[in-house]
Amino acid sequence: MEQDYISKEEIEGRLKRLRGELNKGGWEAAIVVQNVDLFYFSGTMQNAVLFVPVEGEEILMVRKYMERAQRESAVDRVIPLNSWKEIPLLIEEFHGSIPERIGIELDVLPAKAYLRLQEIFSGVEIGDSSPLIMGIRAIKSPYEVDLIKRAGEIGKIVYAEVPKVLKEGMTEIELAGILGEVAMRHGHQNYLRMRAFNYEAFSWHILSGYTGGVLSYIDAPMGGVGLSPAFPVGASLKPIRAHEPILIDFGTCYRGYQSDETRMFCLGKLPKRFKDAYLATRQIEKEVVALTRPGIPCHELFQKGWEVAKRLGYEECFMGPPDHKTRFIGHGIGLEIDEYPFIAQGHGYPLEEGMTFALEPKMVFPAEGAVGIENTYFVGEEGAERLTPAPTELMEV
Amino acid sequence: MEQDYISKEEIEGRLKRLRGELNKGGWEAAIVVQNVDLFYFSGTMQNAVLFVPVEGEEILMVRKYMERAQRESAVDRVIPLNSWKEIPLLIEEFHGSIPERIGIELDVLPAKAYLRLQEIFSGVEIGDSSPLIMGIRAIKSPYEVDLIKRAGEIGKIVYAEVPKVLKEGMTEIELAGILGEVAMRHGHQNYLRMRAFNYEAFSWHILSGYTGGVLSYIDAPMGGVGLSPAFPVGASLKPIRAHEPILIDFGTCYRGYQSDETRMFCLGKLPKRFKDAYLATRQIEKEVVALTRPGIPCHELFQKGWEVAKRLGYEECFMGPPDHKTRFIGHGIGLEIDEYPFIAQGHGYPLEEGMTFALEPKMVFPAEGAVGIENTYFVGEEGAERLTPAPTELMEV
Repeated sequence: MEQDYISKEEIEGRLKRLRGELNKGGWEAAIVVQNVDLFYFSGTMQNAVLFVPVEGEEILMVRKYMERAQRESAVDRVIPLNSWKEIPLLIEEFHGSIPERIGIELDVLPAKAYLRLQEIFSGVEIGDSSPLIMGIRAIKSPYEVDLIKRAGEIGKIVYAEVPKVLKEGMTEIELAGILGEVAMRHGHQNYLRMRAFNYEAFSWHILSGYTGGVLSYIDAPMGGVGLSPAFPVGASLKPIRAHEPILIDFGTCYRGYQSDETRMFCLGKLPKRFKDAYLATRQIEKEVVALTRPGIPCHELFQKGWEVAKRLGYEECFMGPPDHKTRFIGHGIGLEIDEYPFIAQGHGYPLEEGMTFALEPKMVFPAEGAVGIENTYFVGEEGAERLTPAPTELMEV
Repeated sequence: MEQDYISKEEIEGRLKRLRGELNKGGWEAAIVVQNVDLFYFSGTMQNAVLFVPVEGEEILMVRKYMERAQRESAVDRVIPLNSWKEIPLLIEEFHGSIPERIGIELDVLPAKAYLRLQEIFSGVEIGDSSPLIMGIRAIKSPYEVDLIKRAGEIGKIVYAEVPKVLKEGMTEIELAGILGEVAMRHGHQNYLRMRAFNYEAFSWHILSGYTGGVLSYIDAPMGGVGLSPAFPVGASLKPIRAHEPILIDFGTCYRGYQSDETRMFCLGKLPKRFKDAYLATRQIEKEVVALTRPGIPCHELFQKGWEVAKRLGYEECFMGPPDHKTRFIGHGIGLEIDEYPFIAQGHGYPLEEGMTFALEPKMVFPAEGAVGIENTYFVGEEGAERLTPAPTELMEV
């Protein structure tokens, strides 16, 4: 079967930015260890480690599976690696010397592996390259934006299916399964990725009625009941009833790139207070999007969202119940769903052209339900461009 | 909706074993940080940290969400935690003193968080508690075995669906979506868990014809093509054809507990060489299972598997193509799919009563396909008990 590999040009652009940032930060090299970062900088997600020196040639050291890594990767030097112990030997052999300061992704590398690398690279200063890598990954290329858009198209198909299959009495998880099937049939990989420790990303945040008012461990306005204390988030075994707000936050993923999206449904008429609250989230979205452009500090968008919420009288419900409000109204998205930029308090850095983020104003009514809208946006020269094309109207079925 | 929480008795049994092992290892306490371990030792998977001293009371320190952690957890002292900085202060306040040697799961805790804890606990020796925790988790209680069995029953429903839905020309991922929907409808959480860094567990290893002969980064006899280089494992966009071996390795998960299982299907007649190879894997399974009992060293089961494979003339195909054979024929399973025991070369420790493992003899024919059987077993006093009840016959549809 034909596989669409990432072009050499695309990968070289990424590596060039990495070299530049390493150099700026006073690093001599990075060793890229996490599967997602490795895919980003090499084009392959095989079991491997990528050495990127500021000066000199990249080396992709492959544990398994060599043939596939060679075929998929745009890196020229691809060599086998039998054990991590060999990493410095291979660097010395092919790069000529061991750098004195190396960056590694310490936010995801397990401590045990870190201690092992410290032993193997004794005398070398190992620092955290993640902030730098996440900064690079925040700016998407046209190739990446196109894949996020294609994930968004899958979302459109998924949401169009809801009115056809939604029936009173079906459980949230049952609906989740049906939508997952539709999405997978269209190429959704059904595996979302999140970087933060102990967090788990998944597609089936389907909350109906009171489950929309249930909080959980995740940093989100609502968590849902989930299937059990062992998976205490998202769709549950609760049957869906008429006149409840049904919030479907279904992330889709195409060739590794994710889009995040929320739409509202109801069996029959949705009571006016929920409808009004939903219209308020769309108004918030509209005004935040109108401000979105390269150069604006992220927290200004956050403040604008809050300003509109207050003006419309939703201070209590907005982004969670009092005392449990999320610290953001949007998050960067791409290969992971917790990327830069964060549209959040305290995030004063500016939006940049090429960034992509999901904006998700939501309202929570404890014990009653939740409503909200979420779309994924691209920051273009002229402002925000929506990448998730599903219709945004409340769908009463 | 009613939630079935883990009983206090169950949790206390686990904590007692943890205290015993900590004591034996010369630790004064453990701080449990990983979501799965936390769930195992407290009953909740909320965002929290569990302090378990050898002597004294456990403390569950909760970041989010307090109410739910209190309700779900069997631990008595549940207190709020605003930031990791407070951990030693809270331990001092409620435990009375800071232990000098603390175990933490260093195989999963990110390096950055580890360095932060080292700073916060300056002067305290922090070691790796994971081997000890994984040893405890390897022995399942009747409660846990029952949940694995219930996951196995979902698997039976899934496999019974295959002949009803399998059609020539449907893609592997399409079939995967349909089976996922069936499983979720019956309570499958559709989120498998694996402990190893950079590994990703998922249910839809559906390989047909040549994709069964494709290797990938995972330590498995076959990887499959997957959906793209960004998810290079499992079901792909390849259409399923008649007379190909269709290997369905579909893990199911009920209330956090997983069972792992593989069955073989074919549209029309399966060519004799694949059929013979499948019968060989069942013979291997039969002879390994006959040896299974408490006390037998794991590698003896591994050797027995290889001995039968050779006797039947499958040395070349067994557990992967030459030079790429897996180092195991089975793996422990429970809350994670890479638990102890490993039925593997070099794993000389004995099986113990209460262990559960998936045994998966498989044969790979590069460029042609793969066949195999997999069942999850419980090690009882009298020997192996199968927890995955789906019929094991090749199903020609």
